[in-house]
This record gives sequence, C-alpha cells and structure tokens, in this order.
Amino acid sequence: MLEEMAVCRSGMEETMNYSIIGYIIGWVLNLEAGLMVPALVTALIYREKAGWAFLLAMLLCLLIGLPLTVRKPKNRIFYTKEGFVTVALCWIAMSIMGALPFWFSGEIPSLIDAIFETVSGFTTTGASILNDVEALSKCMLFWRSFTHWVGGMGVLVFLLAVLPMVGGSQMNLMKAESPGPTVSRLVPKVKSTAKILYEIYIGMTVLEIILLLLGGMPVFDALTTAFGTAGTGGFGIKNDSIAGYSVYIQVVVTIFMILFGVNFNIYYLILIGKIRQSTKNEEVRWYFGIIGAAILLITFDIYHLYGSVGKAVQQSAFQVATIITTTGYSTTDFNLWPQASRTILVILMFVGACAGSTGGGIKVSRLLILFKTVKKELHQFLHPRNVTKVKIDGKTVEHEVVRQTNVFLVAYVMIFAISVLLISIDEKDLITNFTAVAATFNNIGPGLELVGPASNFSIFSNPVKMVLTFDMLAGRLEIFPMLLLFVRDTWRKF
Amino acid sequence: MLEEMAVCRSGMEETMNYSIIGYIIGWVLNLEAGLMVPALVTALIYREKAGWAFLLAMLLCLLIGLPLTVRKPKNRIFYTKEGFVTVALCWIAMSIMGALPFWFSGEIPSLIDAIFETVSGFTTTGASILNDVEALSKCMLFWRSFTHWVGGMGVLVFLLAVLPMVGGSQMNLMKAESPGPTVSRLVPKVKSTAKILYEIYIGMTVLEIILLLLGGMPVFDALTTAFGTAGTGGFGIKNDSIAGYSVYIQVVVTIFMILFGVNFNIYYLILIGKIRQSTKNEEVRWYFGIIGAAILLITFDIYHLYGSVGKAVQQSAFQVATIITTTGYSTTDFNLWPQASRTILVILMFVGACAGSTGGGIKVSRLLILFKTVKKELHQFLHPRNVTKVKIDGKTVEHEVVRQTNVFLVAYVMIFAISVLLISIDEKDLITNFTAVAATFNNIGPGLELVGPASNFSIFSNPVKMVLTFDMLAGRLEIFPMLLLFVRDTWRKF
Repeated sequence: MLEEMAVCRSGMEETMNYSIIGYIIGWVLNLEAGLMVPALVTALIYREKAGWAFLLAMLLCLLIGLPLTVRKPKNRIFYTKEGFVTVALCWIAMSIMGALPFWFSGEIPSLIDAIFETVSGFTTTGASILNDVEALSKCMLFWRSFTHWVGGMGVLVFLLAVLPMVGGSQMNLMKAESPGPTVSRLVPKVKSTAKILYEIYIGMTVLEIILLLLGGMPVFDALTTAFGTAGTGGFGIKNDSIAGYSVYIQVVVTIFMILFGVNFNIYYLILIGKIRQSTKNEEVRWYFGIIGAAILLITFDIYHLYGSVGKAVQQSAFQVATIITTTGYSTTDFNLWPQASRTILVILMFVGACAGSTGGGIKVSRLLILFKTVKKELHQFLHPRNVTKVKIDGKTVEHEVVRQTNVFLVAYVMIFAISVLLISIDEKDLITNFTAVAATFNNIGPGLELVGPASNFSIFSNPVKMVLTFDMLAGRLEIFPMLLLFVRDTWRKF
Repeated sequence: MLEEMAVCRSGMEETMNYSIIGYIIGWVLNLEAGLMVPALVTALIYREKAGWAFLLAMLLCLLIGLPLTVRKPKNRIFYTKEGFVTVALCWIAMSIMGALPFWFSGEIPSLIDAIFETVSGFTTTGASILNDVEALSKCMLFWRSFTHWVGGMGVLVFLLAVLPMVGGSQMNLMKAESPGPTVSRLVPKVKSTAKILYEIYIGMTVLEIILLLLGGMPVFDALTTAFGTAGTGGFGIKNDSIAGYSVYIQVVVTIFMILFGVNFNIYYLILIGKIRQSTKNEEVRWYFGIIGAAILLITFDIYHLYGSVGKAVQQSAFQVATIITTTGYSTTDFNLWPQASRTILVILMFVGACAGSTGGGIKVSRLLILFKTVKKELHQFLHPRNVTKVKIDGKTVEHEVVRQTNVFLVAYVMIFAISVLLISIDEKDLITNFTAVAATFNNIGPGLELVGPASNFSIFSNPVKMVLTFDMLAGRLEIFPMLLLFVRDTWRKF
C-alpha cells in the first residue's frame, strides 16, 4: 500500500485528474451494459415484454460509456482523492443507470423510488419501497437480485480483476471501495488479489446454488436467493422473503449468510493450505463469538414463543445471521419478539460483519480496534510510563489506522444523528426513524416498527427516501467518498 | 498541568497509595456531615421529626471520616490513577452516606431507591424514583435539592478550595472531577482557581434566588429551585416540577439554566474585565448557536399546539434549555410534541452543555473537537502533503486531547450500548430504554415515553436501577474514573 501512495503523491497534488475519472466512469457504464445481459436473457426465457427496458438502458449506458473510454487518458496521476471521488461518482452513475429498467418498464413508476431500489440493490442493503414484490416481472426480479451480487464484491474491484488499469490507481480504487479499516493484498499484485477474491466469491455462490437446488428450490429462486445471500443484500422474490421455503433451505441460507460475512482472506488462507493460520484470525473469532452469544441469548428469550428448542434456535440463528451480516432476509417478524431480543438485534445492526467480506455495518475489526483503544487508555492511566500499542492478531495496528478508525466512528455518529433528524419531518415514530437509518446506513434492509421485516420503505416521502438513499451509499462506501463530494475544496481548481 | 504531572510521575508508579486515598475519602465524609447541617436546620425550622435521620447520618459520616483524617499520610505520591480512583470512591461513599437520611426516615423505604435518588442528586441528573415528591418532608426536599448544588461544582473541587491539600494531588483530583476535555486553571494556583469558581457559582446562585423571590416565590421554593438550576440538576419540589409557577419564574429559570451551562471561565474573564476575549470563545458561541437554532426549529414545529408565538417560544426555550444544560426541570410533557421536536430534544440530550460548567452530556467543546477531526480528515484526503491541525479558539488542540476525546466517544458509545442491552431485561419499550440511558448517562433526568417528563424511574426493577445508577456516576465523572474501578490491574499489588 505504501509504495503506491508514494507513487501517487509525486507530481502536483492539487489538480483533480478529471480525464481519468471520466475514463473509469465510462468503463463502469460499459460494464453495466454487459451486466444487464443476464436480465435480458431472463426476459427472453420467460418471454416478458419488459425486456425492452433493459435494451434501452444498455444502449444509454454504452452511449455515455463508449465515448468516455475511446482513448486512455495520458495523465496517469491518481491520488486517494481521485480514488474516493471516482468510486463515489461511479456508484451514483451506476445506480441511476441501473434504475432505468424499473422506471422505463413502469414497474416502479417513480424515478426516486427506482433509484432508491437500485441503490438498495447495489449497496446490498435490501430495503425496498415495493409493497408487492411478486407483481414484478421475472427479468426485473432477476436484475434486482443481481445488483446485490454485483454490489457485494464491488464493481470497481471487478473492473480491476478484468481490465488493464493505470498505475497507482488500482490500490486507491480498491481502498475506497473495499469495506473495513485496512485493505490487505493477498498477493503482491492488486489485479491478482481482485481475481482471487472474485473466484472465491463465484465459487461460494455456485456452491450455495447447488445446495439450494438439492433442497428442491426452483432454478430461478435458487439463483436470486444465492445472489442476495452472497452480496449480503436481502432482496427476496417473495413477499414473505424466505419464510415460505422449507427449513432445509432456511438453514442453508443461514449458513451461507454467515459464511459470506467472514473476511475473504480466511478462505484464501484455507485454499492455499494455511488452515492453522486461518483459525487464528482475531476478527473472525470474535465474529463467530458474537454470533454464538447472540443466538444463545435470543433462543433463551424467545423459547416460549416457539415451544421447541430446535425451532427457537433455528429462528434465532436466522435472524442473528441476517442482521449481523447485514443481509436482511426474513423468516419471521422479529418486531413481535420480546424487548431483550429486539435490543440485541438492534445492537447487532451496528456491529456488522467482518472487514473484507460483503457485509456492511461498522465491522467487527473496527469495533475490535475501538475496544482495544479504550483498554489501552485504561492501561495508560495505570501505567503512564509504559507505552502500550493496540494489537490485532499479535501485530501492532498502525497509529494511522487507529486514528482513521476513531475518525470513522465520529463521522458515523454524526451522519447518523443528522439523518435521524432530517427524516423526522415525516412524523414517524422515533424507533421507525432510528432503525430506518440504522437499516439503510448499515446496509441491512429491515428495521423495526413501520420498517420492520413485514413492512417496507414506501411509507416515506420523497425527501426522506433521498436522505436514506444517501445513507445507503455512504454506508457501503464507508462515508468518506460520499462526504468528499460535498466539500467545496474537492472541486476547486488551484 | 504538565508540571504537576512531572511531579506525580516521580517515584515508583506501580503501587497504589491507599493511605492518601483513605485520607481524602475521610475528608469528604467529614465535609458531608457538615453539608447536612442546613437540612437539619430546615427540619428544626419546620419542626419535622425526620431531622433525627440527618443527625444519625452525620454521626455515621464522622465516625468513618474522623479516624481516616486524624493524621496526614506521609507518602504524598499521587498519580492520575490515584486521582481517578479517589474521585470515583469519594462519589460512591458520598452517595451511600447521603442516601441514609432518606432511608432512615423511611421516606424512601428501599435503600437501592434511596441511593438512586442520591446519586441522581449529586450527579445533577434529576431522575427520580418518587411518584409523589410532595409527600416528602421539607428537610428531605431541601437535602435532595442541596445535593444538586453540591454535586454541580464538585465536592473535591470544594475540598480543594477550603482545605490544605497535598502537593501534586490537586490537579489530578480536579482533572478527574471536572467535566470537559481539558481543565484550565484560571490562575496559577489550583486552590485559587477552585475558590474563584466557587465564588462565581455562589454569586450566580444568590442572584437567581433574589430574582425568584422578586417574582413572589416562597423562600423555600426559591432556594431549592435555585439549587437545582445552579447544579443543572432538576429535582423539583412539586409533582409538576416548574409548570405550576408563573411565566416570570419560568423565564428566570430558563435564563439561569442556560447561564449555568456556560463555561465558567467566561464569567471569570468578564469579572476581570476581559469582555472582548470572553465573546470570542468558540465553544460558547456554538453553545448559544445550537440553543438558538433548536428554539427556532421547535417553535416552528409546535406553534400549532400553543396558538401564540410567545407561548411557543417560551415553551420551546424552556425545554431546549432544560435538556441541553442537562437540568431536567419540566413545564410541559414534550412526550406529546411532534416527532421532529422530540428528535431535536433527543439529539440535544447528547450534546450537553459547555466544558467547565455544571452541565453534563458529551459537551459542546468535545463535539467541536470531534467535528473538526472529521473536517481535518477530509482536508487530508484532498491535500495529503499539508499537515493540518485541529484548532479551537485559534489555538492548536494538543494531539493528546484529540486522542482522548476520540477514546471518550468510543467508551461513551460502548457503555451506552451495553446499558441499553442490560436494562432491556425489564421488557420496557425501546424508546423508554434508550432515553432512560440517555437521560441518566448524560445526567439530564427525564427521557421519553415511560420515563418522560410526566413520569419517573420507579417503573424499573432493582437491577435496572443499579445499572442506571452506575450510568449516572459514569456520566458525571466522564467514564474513566468509574471504569478504572473495574480493571483488575487497578487493585493489583506489584
């Protein structure tokens, strides 16, 4: 990471390199046109007329994308700043273009709703404004779930894996798009790292599809459900989400939700045979520890509702997995659960999954760093002359990472408070507002009360939907890329 | 501050100096016996039998206190560690002894309730477990309000002002007890600083009492109301708090609540004629800015409920002042206000007053530092080669202060989340739980729903009351002194 930073910092730092930003946005739009092909094929298979909406959207993507990519920009200077701005703009462009099929076809009549739904898809949130999901045509349902799968790993990471990119840009792009406090490269080359990650991602998705098919799930359902699980998104194709499927399928989904919330580096370590090393990862241990404790406590709390330990464990495990991994599938309305369980779920909403996974939230590793910072502070009061350092996996966490993690929390809390305040204009109750922001900002999907698992976000006014759309993007891109768009200095010429 | 740290750090740092801790606790208890005299006098004036409870409690205080203070400890080594532990233990001892009169007299039959009420008094929270305040005898009501006045400025600060204390201990004690990210000494000597602060405090309290008396308030009511305002506590002597008094009195209380939330350094600057300098304080400017904006927004939101701008402004101003200064008096049940207003009040619960005031919460200066940290981070992304520093009042904030402020927020969020989880065992609704923690941890008093201004904390079970009691202490002492008590290392001998 450091070498590239050094490369990037040479040259005049002050001018924004617009040509390369345009070039990358262009490629993302070309790519998006390609990503719409499977949805188009779905339309052909089911002979749905709505397919034309995809054709038109693809055409528009290419109309904007191709001119931007005809020639490589000469100026290859690319800083963190450009990385952040590019990622933010790419995600916005992608979301607007991705919303067009819903809008063109009239299946989501309001453009703001269509954008909300698409952002919710790409950011793997899974919050929906649809009252009746089953009314959508198959190709739209496919595209809706597919956006989860694409957004889960990251569009730019995909781009890095398949396209020849310019010098220092790679790491800065990956840094801006990848979740978690640090980005580790599995292998020296960024491109190879991106490829390995995508291979693991595809492999696990295929495995889930096979297991779902073995449980007797129809192919279309298996594909879309697996997309939603892999991206930790949560868009279902049924109004009752996963509740209508068999216990076997619910268990498979539970397991895969948890697996997709694990730091992907672990799978790489397992693949190359370093199994012992993979079991020592502190973040992953805590992740499983938190999941285990939460399942236990909630099972104890809801046992009387279900009457059998097995049923209670299964329901508890599903809900814990869907919330902590920020997926958002549902099998029951936990709105009706006792307070203690509801409170645990609300707290899990903020915990989130591991860094380097497809899950959202604050991330277990960040919480570990923050928790250790407090421990260190207490230690320092007791032993002022000992210099203590925050360590994860036995290695000292760089001061810069600790600082950034702290700043992240501050920005997180601020955006959270401002969002809750802004959406209070709709006069919904405080729990609805609080959990609506929690569910979108942490990319989960459902909240409590009016936005509970059995409800949706159509109750809000357009301005509120726009605030929540911003929160979804800010949550997925971990705040700073989105904030940077609103700083005057970003756009000023020097 | 730094010189004393240097003094403190000489010598073996590892052994806890128990003799000096005991000595200071002893003095605090002796002092508390003295502080009960006015309540005893009240009992005599109103010829209340409950006075014997104070006599007994005073006797017990002296029985423990005097033996501890008969001779000065020889070992004068006193570190930050001892400062924190001493302050935490003093506050706990003081609260237990202070609860005895309520318990002895049987006016609060449960000891846990009596401790809750006393901690709520000393920490200037103002949360009550009493269903019928007016049933209390006058002397108990006096003691209850007087704890606010004592706790507002700090017991140890008082001790510093009147007692000859040992060397390096002074600053470490003041640091641990005073609210805010930094402690500034107005004059070189800690003792003189403490005296000046107490003089300002007494002066302003007297001024308020006079103004209340001029409004036709009975002497007893004026005294207790002023104590509650000065300490930003909020215990009233009527079941309807301040609602039954005239508009004039409500306005006086509003103004003084706001004034007691201002950093006291400002008053010192005004007293010594540096008026221009006093108006430049960034924290105070933001404090008034936030108050102004909140009053404006809420007035706009509740206008339809009151029909006249004057009435709406007055109600809005009172509620904003009572919440942001963490006082907790009430004149209306804002539980019934529209969501936007309720949300603004909930956010103000966390903002709190200025550092160096008697108010609680996170404090405006901390939020300023945190806000500027985020701004600095964004700046750094844009200009990686410029080294930017966080500045307040034009002066660079020391790196150490920024770091501690960040760690404070982390510890704050953690304790908050754990508390909400723990008290959920009572199966109250989430808003009640959330705002109950917010109201106690920020030392405000009332929350929303079941702990709203028209209700009280008697609804909770004993374990929950104990969690909230801890939160009140942790909030008043700004977390770390209380946390340190639970670290094994604190008590280990080396």
